[in-house]
Amino acid sequence: MEKSPKFAVIGGGSWATAIVKMLCENVDTVHWYMRSVYAIEHIKKQEHNPNYLSSVEFDVNQLELSSDINKTIAAADYLIFAIPSAFLKRELDGLKVSLEDKMIFSAIKGIVPESSLIVGEHFEKFYNIPPENIGVITGPCHAEEVALERLSYITIACTDEERAKIMADHLASDYIKCKISDDVTGTEYAAMLKNIYAIAAGIAHGLGYGDNFQSVLMSNAIREMKKFIKKVHKMKRNINDSAYLGDLLVTGYSIFSRNRMFGNMIGKGYTVKSAQMEMSMIAEGYYATESAYKINKEVKAKTPIINAVYGILYEGKNPKKVMKKLADKMD
Amino acid sequence: MEKSPKFAVIGGGSWATAIVKMLCENVDTVHWYMRSVYAIEHIKKQEHNPNYLSSVEFDVNQLELSSDINKTIAAADYLIFAIPSAFLKRELDGLKVSLEDKMIFSAIKGIVPESSLIVGEHFEKFYNIPPENIGVITGPCHAEEVALERLSYITIACTDEERAKIMADHLASDYIKCKISDDVTGTEYAAMLKNIYAIAAGIAHGLGYGDNFQSVLMSNAIREMKKFIKKVHKMKRNINDSAYLGDLLVTGYSIFSRNRMFGNMIGKGYTVKSAQMEMSMIAEGYYATESAYKINKEVKAKTPIINAVYGILYEGKNPKKVMKKLADKMD
Repeated sequence: MEKSPKFAVIGGGSWATAIVKMLCENVDTVHWYMRSVYAIEHIKKQEHNPNYLSSVEFDVNQLELSSDINKTIAAADYLIFAIPSAFLKRELDGLKVSLEDKMIFSAIKGIVPESSLIVGEHFEKFYNIPPENIGVITGPCHAEEVALERLSYITIACTDEERAKIMADHLASDYIKCKISDDVTGTEYAAMLKNIYAIAAGIAHGLGYGDNFQSVLMSNAIREMKKFIKKVHKMKRNINDSAYLGDLLVTGYSIFSRNRMFGNMIGKGYTVKSAQMEMSMIAEGYYATESAYKINKEVKAKTPIINAVYGILYEGKNPKKVMKKLADKMD
Repeated sequence: MEKSPKFAVIGGGSWATAIVKMLCENVDTVHWYMRSVYAIEHIKKQEHNPNYLSSVEFDVNQLELSSDINKTIAAADYLIFAIPSAFLKRELDGLKVSLEDKMIFSAIKGIVPESSLIVGEHFEKFYNIPPENIGVITGPCHAEEVALERLSYITIACTDEERAKIMADHLASDYIKCKISDDVTGTEYAAMLKNIYAIAAGIAHGLGYGDNFQSVLMSNAIREMKKFIKKVHKMKRNINDSAYLGDLLVTGYSIFSRNRMFGNMIGKGYTVKSAQMEMSMIAEGYYATESAYKINKEVKAKTPIINAVYGILYEGKNPKKVMKKLADKMD
């Protein structure tokens, strides 16, 4: 399977579209599954995704598009999952083809709500995928900047270094630099936790806290993230590497982050429900908050920021009061 | 001296004004030196600084204003220096009163150009101030947000914990939280180095690099800062504490930072000279770059970002080419 492997991207959103673009710089054919038949037809005719990163023009001869996930998966060796975690189970429930001998890379930044597991763990537990066949593709990387070909750095994590390198070699280009890592669990948890911290940043902003507070919040967040990940999966890692700190910063400082935007609305007084309706979608960090909180009931890291966000989102606590208490705990 | 000490602030800029405001929350009288007789008269009559943070209203009965630095220093036990590092020597050259038994806190974020020393070291070397009489007041803290009474966190560093506490107690209020630290050298170097990284962020922005790159730059910067400070003053510290990482972020992400603005102009094609003229001032980080570069000739930390900024500012190297090379070294 390692010789000129075939690649498939599962998902039709902006991050999926960005990854297809990266692959198209390096391979002749990308197998691309998305649910929307309309979007597929549009891409075939208009050469761009109608819904996301529509400025990216594809050479459609490079794309093997399908709305049949089984067909796409059957055709490829390296599968990159890039759909919202909330939809992963639904998609996988439709699987008829085997995942044996497939390399599975998660580009999903979240927790599978039904199992409360990060994506790699979910595949390991429910699909018996051996750990060395599981990898992670993580940022810091806004898909929108990939579309603009602005220099970006991504991290490919896999316990099998050779496979991480193969994935990296097929994503790297003039504007994408790839670093490899063996911390599959840590990078995936970081990608998920940062969304919670982005919600916290949004709540603080919505409540009127300023840039001074935001910098202290991020400084506390990275220390909290380090403690949490260490409890979940202890190994030697530098939490200030791009996949952890960089990823936290690109999301926590982005006014376009859906998680930060969601938090901002909560801080401004929207209820969770009304904020979700207003955004016509659910921010990944919403699920991540519940999962991280539950996981932490077992691993018992000191996580005042996660606890604060959980209290606001799930226990109906007053954002202003909770953030004030949190502020007293930070330093 | 420790019983109800008297406080003096040296400087008339925004950070000095913010510190006077903090002190006024806690003490009856603040001795305040500034060079401009006009500004002093204005404050006395109009109850605000005409040039900086003019929205901050003072109770002038609390202020003992003077344009005579000797008078101000003679009157106080705790001296807080908050003038640009480029003007420190000039001010100190006019000193006639003794600094013996005075506590000297530096709120200056830079290097003394004439001695290439951080402020604490400068006082120690040229004024024989014992280390326990020297402290640092550091952010992350934009003065403008202090004016707005937005919750901010500052760090007070002194090897004498009691004195750090006294200083902290007199600066803390509803909107200012103070943390104490014994890392005088490290916090002061961090405050100085972050200005160089803010220039780098500005240059990158000016050249068209985006948010993905910025997050990776900050992630590399904090790792570089850690290495540099460890070489200069080895001790146990958490580089992700607010005084280091927080301070880096609040400056590196601020579009109002003079250092980032200066870098931005360089990135957009201004020469160093024209950028300085356009800003009608010199960014602290400009001097810091030369000093850090020189210091690193001796301590030999791996500092690709400092080297890149030095090459652009002092060796006339092409910003675009230098940043491209730097980008290749980052991960």
